[in-house]
Amino acid sequence: MTVLLSELEDRAQLIRSFERVRTQTEDLVHPLEIEDMVVQTMPDVSPTKWHLAHTSWFFEKLVLERSCPDYAPFDENFNALFNSYYQSFGAPFPRDRRGLLSRPTVSEVMAYRHYVDSAIKALLDEGDVETIRQLAPALNIGLHHEQQHQELLLMDAKHVLSQNAAPPAYRDQKTRPHVGSVAAHDWIPFEGGRVHAGCSPDGFAFDNERPRHTLHLQPFELASRLVASGEFLAFIEDRGYERSEFWLADGWDLVQSEGWRAPLYWELAGKGWTVLTLGGRRAIDPAEPVCHVSYYEADAYARWAGCRLPSEFEWEHAAEGHTGQQPPSATYLESGALHPLPLDGAAPTGTPAQLFGDVWEWTTSPYSPYPGYEPYGGHLGEYNGKFMINQLVLRGGSCVTPRAHMRPTYRNFYYPHQRWMFAGVRLAR
Amino acid sequence: MTVLLSELEDRAQLIRSFERVRTQTEDLVHPLEIEDMVVQTMPDVSPTKWHLAHTSWFFEKLVLERSCPDYAPFDENFNALFNSYYQSFGAPFPRDRRGLLSRPTVSEVMAYRHYVDSAIKALLDEGDVETIRQLAPALNIGLHHEQQHQELLLMDAKHVLSQNAAPPAYRDQKTRPHVGSVAAHDWIPFEGGRVHAGCSPDGFAFDNERPRHTLHLQPFELASRLVASGEFLAFIEDRGYERSEFWLADGWDLVQSEGWRAPLYWELAGKGWTVLTLGGRRAIDPAEPVCHVSYYEADAYARWAGCRLPSEFEWEHAAEGHTGQQPPSATYLESGALHPLPLDGAAPTGTPAQLFGDVWEWTTSPYSPYPGYEPYGGHLGEYNGKFMINQLVLRGGSCVTPRAHMRPTYRNFYYPHQRWMFAGVRLAR
Amino acid sequence: MTVLLSELEDRAQLIRSFERVRTQTEDLVHPLEIEDMVVQTMPDVSPTKWHLAHTSWFFEKLVLERSCPDYAPFDENFNALFNSYYQSFGAPFPRDRRGLLSRPTVSEVMAYRHYVDSAIKALLDEGDVETIRQLAPALNIGLHHEQQHQELLLMDAKHVLSQNAAPPAYRDQKTRPHVGSVAAHDWIPFEGGRVHAGCSPDGFAFDNERPRHTLHLQPFELASRLVASGEFLAFIEDRGYERSEFWLADGWDLVQSEGWRAPLYWELAGKGWTVLTLGGRRAIDPAEPVCHVSYYEADAYARWAGCRLPSEFEWEHAAEGHTGQQPPSATYLESGALHPLPLDGAAPTGTPAQLFGDVWEWTTSPYSPYPGYEPYGGHLGEYNGKFMINQLVLRGGSCVTPRAHMRPTYRNFYYPHQRWMFAGVRLAR
Amino acid sequence: MTVLLSELEDRAQLIRSFERVRTQTEDLVHPLEIEDMVVQTMPDVSPTKWHLAHTSWFFEKLVLERSCPDYAPFDENFNALFNSYYQSFGAPFPRDRRGLLSRPTVSEVMAYRHYVDSAIKALLDEGDVETIRQLAPALNIGLHHEQQHQELLLMDAKHVLSQNAAPPAYRDQKTRPHVGSVAAHDWIPFEGGRVHAGCSPDGFAFDNERPRHTLHLQPFELASRLVASGEFLAFIEDRGYERSEFWLADGWDLVQSEGWRAPLYWELAGKGWTVLTLGGRRAIDPAEPVCHVSYYEADAYARWAGCRLPSEFEWEHAAEGHTGQQPPSATYLESGALHPLPLDGAAPTGTPAQLFGDVWEWTTSPYSPYPGYEPYGGHLGEYNGKFMINQLVLRGGSCVTPRAHMRPTYRNFYYPHQRWMFAGVRLAR
Repeated sequence: MTVLLSELEDRAQLIRSFERVRTQTEDLVHPLEIEDMVVQTMPDVSPTKWHLAHTSWFFEKLVLERSCPDYAPFDENFNALFNSYYQSFGAPFPRDRRGLLSRPTVSEVMAYRHYVDSAIKALLDEGDVETIRQLAPALNIGLHHEQQHQELLLMDAKHVLSQNAAPPAYRDQKTRPHVGSVAAHDWIPFEGGRVHAGCSPDGFAFDNERPRHTLHLQPFELASRLVASGEFLAFIEDRGYERSEFWLADGWDLVQSEGWRAPLYWELAGKGWTVLTLGGRRAIDPAEPVCHVSYYEADAYARWAGCRLPSEFEWEHAAEGHTGQQPPSATYLESGALHPLPLDGAAPTGTPAQLFGDVWEWTTSPYSPYPGYEPYGGHLGEYNGKFMINQLVLRGGSCVTPRAHMRPTYRNFYYPHQRWMFAGVRLAR
Repeated sequence: MTVLLSELEDRAQLIRSFERVRTQTEDLVHPLEIEDMVVQTMPDVSPTKWHLAHTSWFFEKLVLERSCPDYAPFDENFNALFNSYYQSFGAPFPRDRRGLLSRPTVSEVMAYRHYVDSAIKALLDEGDVETIRQLAPALNIGLHHEQQHQELLLMDAKHVLSQNAAPPAYRDQKTRPHVGSVAAHDWIPFEGGRVHAGCSPDGFAFDNERPRHTLHLQPFELASRLVASGEFLAFIEDRGYERSEFWLADGWDLVQSEGWRAPLYWELAGKGWTVLTLGGRRAIDPAEPVCHVSYYEADAYARWAGCRLPSEFEWEHAAEGHTGQQPPSATYLESGALHPLPLDGAAPTGTPAQLFGDVWEWTTSPYSPYPGYEPYGGHLGEYNGKFMINQLVLRGGSCVTPRAHMRPTYRNFYYPHQRWMFAGVRLAR
Repeated sequence: MTVLLSELEDRAQLIRSFERVRTQTEDLVHPLEIEDMVVQTMPDVSPTKWHLAHTSWFFEKLVLERSCPDYAPFDENFNALFNSYYQSFGAPFPRDRRGLLSRPTVSEVMAYRHYVDSAIKALLDEGDVETIRQLAPALNIGLHHEQQHQELLLMDAKHVLSQNAAPPAYRDQKTRPHVGSVAAHDWIPFEGGRVHAGCSPDGFAFDNERPRHTLHLQPFELASRLVASGEFLAFIEDRGYERSEFWLADGWDLVQSEGWRAPLYWELAGKGWTVLTLGGRRAIDPAEPVCHVSYYEADAYARWAGCRLPSEFEWEHAAEGHTGQQPPSATYLESGALHPLPLDGAAPTGTPAQLFGDVWEWTTSPYSPYPGYEPYGGHLGEYNGKFMINQLVLRGGSCVTPRAHMRPTYRNFYYPHQRWMFAGVRLAR
Repeated sequence: MTVLLSELEDRAQLIRSFERVRTQTEDLVHPLEIEDMVVQTMPDVSPTKWHLAHTSWFFEKLVLERSCPDYAPFDENFNALFNSYYQSFGAPFPRDRRGLLSRPTVSEVMAYRHYVDSAIKALLDEGDVETIRQLAPALNIGLHHEQQHQELLLMDAKHVLSQNAAPPAYRDQKTRPHVGSVAAHDWIPFEGGRVHAGCSPDGFAFDNERPRHTLHLQPFELASRLVASGEFLAFIEDRGYERSEFWLADGWDLVQSEGWRAPLYWELAGKGWTVLTLGGRRAIDPAEPVCHVSYYEADAYARWAGCRLPSEFEWEHAAEGHTGQQPPSATYLESGALHPLPLDGAAPTGTPAQLFGDVWEWTTSPYSPYPGYEPYGGHLGEYNGKFMINQLVLRGGSCVTPRAHMRPTYRNFYYPHQRWMFAGVRLAR
């Protein structure tokens, strides 16, 4: 993805990137029934067909309407229906009512996608060099944006399937021979001091990853791997969900009002705890990373364990120089597991394992602008900046995150009570 | 329908009745897309696929499980999922969450229907005489029950379609040459005194229509026809929705909190008021009966007009001796208009017109048990009796009510705030 | 009270009536602390000081402003603050926010009362005969209105006191030697047929008690006394609150959502059930009438007992010819018990006991207008008529109802879920 | 306050400190009526009498019960009633129901206070040296705690008074000759780099102010004074509350749902904007600091002005070396204005004015633990740490903050939507 800007002349490659991302999205919905693509099971969840349409709307509004003077929109009603939150494009259709829409149908949404695809491809084929040069940044953001929605689409589909009386598998579970435990984690020490965070001007990054800046870290240690389900089970069995002393006050209120007793998708069956995965419900594997926990649960676990969660800057400092591509075992969207995997073999001494992929790692850092932050210009100014309140940063990517999104500076963000994303825990101290 | 019990031997006829009703239901869903059959737009509305399944569940629980000792249910989960409200069959799946279910799919529901159909038909084909004799009453209730859901299915589908940004027509609008006004209504006088209400022991009727009993009516007059849309428009234009003096206190609170300014599905477009029908949105026809009003609106209109609404017993007294079959112009489900029609020609002097079909007529009568009311036995005891509180009786049937349900003693019932059924107004004084 | 209109010339008597009622209200608040008079513990409850002020506002708006051209209101803000629900006087201050007002203080409210008292008395002293003649009906309604608020004030004060960690007694409990059981009730038979209901034109009655009209009753029987607490306890112990078969559907939903397990103010202590009275908490007396039950509970009890509740017309028919003054043992406000009393001795054969006083008796009758109902004119048109929906009629008066309100035609009304009034159960069949 | 620990022997001084703080609290309630002390106008607000009791409960639980083996609590029910949020003392009475309690009365609460006062004073008089040494830290925290509640009591009383139809003044408004404008603010530059934050081990500070630690600041500039009401008015008049581009997404949602159009307590009267102060409602003074704004409003104002808010560390760095005692004009509780004051004369060049007192200054910093944070031991571990989520730090103190709480390291904290505290804005860039 990051080479796009430096090879603007290569239209064929631009088209290939566009086709690859758009096709990947459509591949993801093949296992779903039409009915699965319509339902909205909570306000945070969007119907699959909404994701399919919104990602097309994004190209329509931010590329086609700006670069094709005579572009005719597919349907005027989509202007509001598939506007996620851009006030500058007019009032969006209310998010919590997306599941009340039976129309457009899935096949109409697919026609919309292909209408937009054709227009984009015609533009890339036939546009003059200056046009291509001007649209490339927004097109590129549109592709990263669509990849973000690939992850959202799977998170949301999982929630939709889960609400059924007999939750079907999204697809057959791959063989999972491993059910075991993991060795105790190591502590990897870092000296801290004067360090840097954020992305340099080169390469693709979202506006929220910039500018690169200096900061000061106290010495710290990071756990050599993610917290495993078996470890989290020990917290549960030690009555962790019943003891207020481990919890932040707002979290404790939620534990009471929501009746939380375990991570989302865990269920106590006769023989023991099971977990719902995109491959169906099965017994938990004590060695696999715990997943689908809120910040409150991550934080309570850490306090119970006598530790704390890392800040995003501690995490980034530890991850610097690494990328999602290494180690090869990282579990991201394209690797196909769709669930975090147990650590395969001993981690190399001195390097934290599982930094990328598997589960997003909660950090203590508020999602705030970096010093000197400059939002994108125009409509895209609403992409990130206006959400910089009340949310916390998660780092590293998950088993449903496209590989291209795994980089040390990437900042994901959620509210502390949310659990339906693939979020887990790494300890610090 | 009502002949079933007296011709038990005629298995062929039982089967024909069963097939006719079941097929009629499936015919009703042909114009819908799968997406339309999944969505639940408010707690009162059930998804189309839920209606398709629930009516089958009814036969499964009340006929098959009682008459076929070796009947194997299609899916154990359906026991709760498609239980509407029968506590005696265990806790039903929560009504307001029906739209969160993507599964079973529509095609699985159709398979469920056909599975039940086959079992019922096998039973009717092969059961011994005593078995047939015993199951016939419940089967008969099941058919009337399914017809009630035919109306609900259309009411609900209309609401689902209406919530879209561009509400599609359920089906093409039939030619409607008439747009006009109607002559002022007459008043039909009745002497009252000692009269009777309720159904005699003969013929099919629900338990809530019995026993037939004596009561005393004051002299009264009934309007010769339903209130027309043009008349209701005059109420609106006289600021009827803004003047508290016409409204019951609970209704006035709703007018404020819901922002009611007109009947449901009315919308003020540039040129005038339009109404959404199952054939799409179009200008209101001032001559057609007003429809989709709450009791509060019906009552406020009547007070504005210097009149009142009738009681159910006044209505029944006026309707006695008439049936839905006469006059032939009555607008019910099978007549196909799917919307109330203007009165065609002058009504015969001395007889109220439009008593049956077109719109349900709000009455002032609480939905209460008649003196000596005996609920059905067994599970069916929950069919009617437990709802006899907080609701009001409506009489006469609507344009989406199956013809077989039009009889002078039939008691429909809704809460006074509800508007999504085809309910209108007849004046009394 | 009812003699007022026929003795208009007797100004002294008018003044005495006015003073007696106004003083009686103030006597009722003496046992309360200032803090008790400010709090609103649920939207149905009004603070004591609001009652004190609203009853004065009533005289100000309906007598003084109409009969004294130069009357200066005590405080312009009170126009909305102490308007209960009269839209024709402008938008009332929201009912559910009455407890948010710290001002006016109780002493300011008392000053308001005395300001109004002086003005009324000056008017009665000095007004010419025609003025007195014209204001007398509204003044009379104002006195009955204030007596209604005497009951409300005690109901509300009881709820306010009850919400404290250690509910104080409103006043010391009188000696209550009786703790026992009662003999089984008898059934008093009535033939029914053509009967009359409602108040004749003579004497004081509210508009909702008129006109007197004919109706037809089936033969029925009425229990010779109220249901006793010990009997209701048997229902509880038979798991009445856990068995859906006894309950109306809306009531069953409330039992679940509210967690009802007994009447309001009952509490299971170590040794058994206790009840909170205005004299404090004590063990229930099995012989005293059960009190503070909703319609749903009354109805479920009746179904459990194999009976039903009476209609208001059955009750009125049985009570006709009796008045609250007989038998002398009736328990009303002035008798001072402030709690229903066990039946003292055997009831005379053939006459229902406890018809008046003790507890209001739930009936199955909706609070609807009688045929030919004429609301009061002017602002008082909002007094009763606009509440004639969604509520049920209760008959007979309670231990906190002023004696003057006990008459066979009096119609009290509440929503079926409400429990904080002194409401109980009489069986019919 | 901070000398207490080093002069343990001086019992007389301990007693004087205790008496001074306790008396100061009681002095604050003299202007209030009993009714004002009972009402709870929103969940964030506690009744005055609750503050009076809770501050006594704090000494009871944390000093008396630990240091006096034979201490008899005043009332067992108070254990839960006046527990604010300490789960380790058992479940507190629900915060949002404090206003439903009419008992204990205000005079009972005062008796409770004096009971506790006597016990504390007896302990300080008669306790042995070791006892005094051990209780001194908790006593000291209890005094700072009570001072925090002095501010809360006034914030809450202001809200209670404001909800009345004619909000009374808490006390007469002092002469306010000034109504004018202020000169444009200067920018005070700071170099940033390696700095320190937090309190050293010496002197009194809450646990959340420690440990002192190193961090890195970018160069920044701070406005030389607070934002004035006249400046905020320009934002309003530029349609600041109607333009989404200035607002964080969560804030924009609130602007819509709450209908915010100006700071809390501002009201547009005929001639212009007025503000409710503890001295009553009056025209705004354009020169006085804007007050009662949420974080969202502070942030939107800053974005509109082309600036941003400072971080808590920027603020602390600028304030280091200053204290609330200088300059003498600082407006804190004891100075008696009870409202922020216009800047009196030109600020000294190079030094930010109004750092202490007047209004709390919103910062962008989440309320998080400092690196190496150690909560208090025992029950007091719940004092601060469990609230370190979802809230933002405010610095500097307000016109209702006791002087003793003005120090460069003090961290106050509120949710970003809250407005009833005296919070304002200082710009940074």
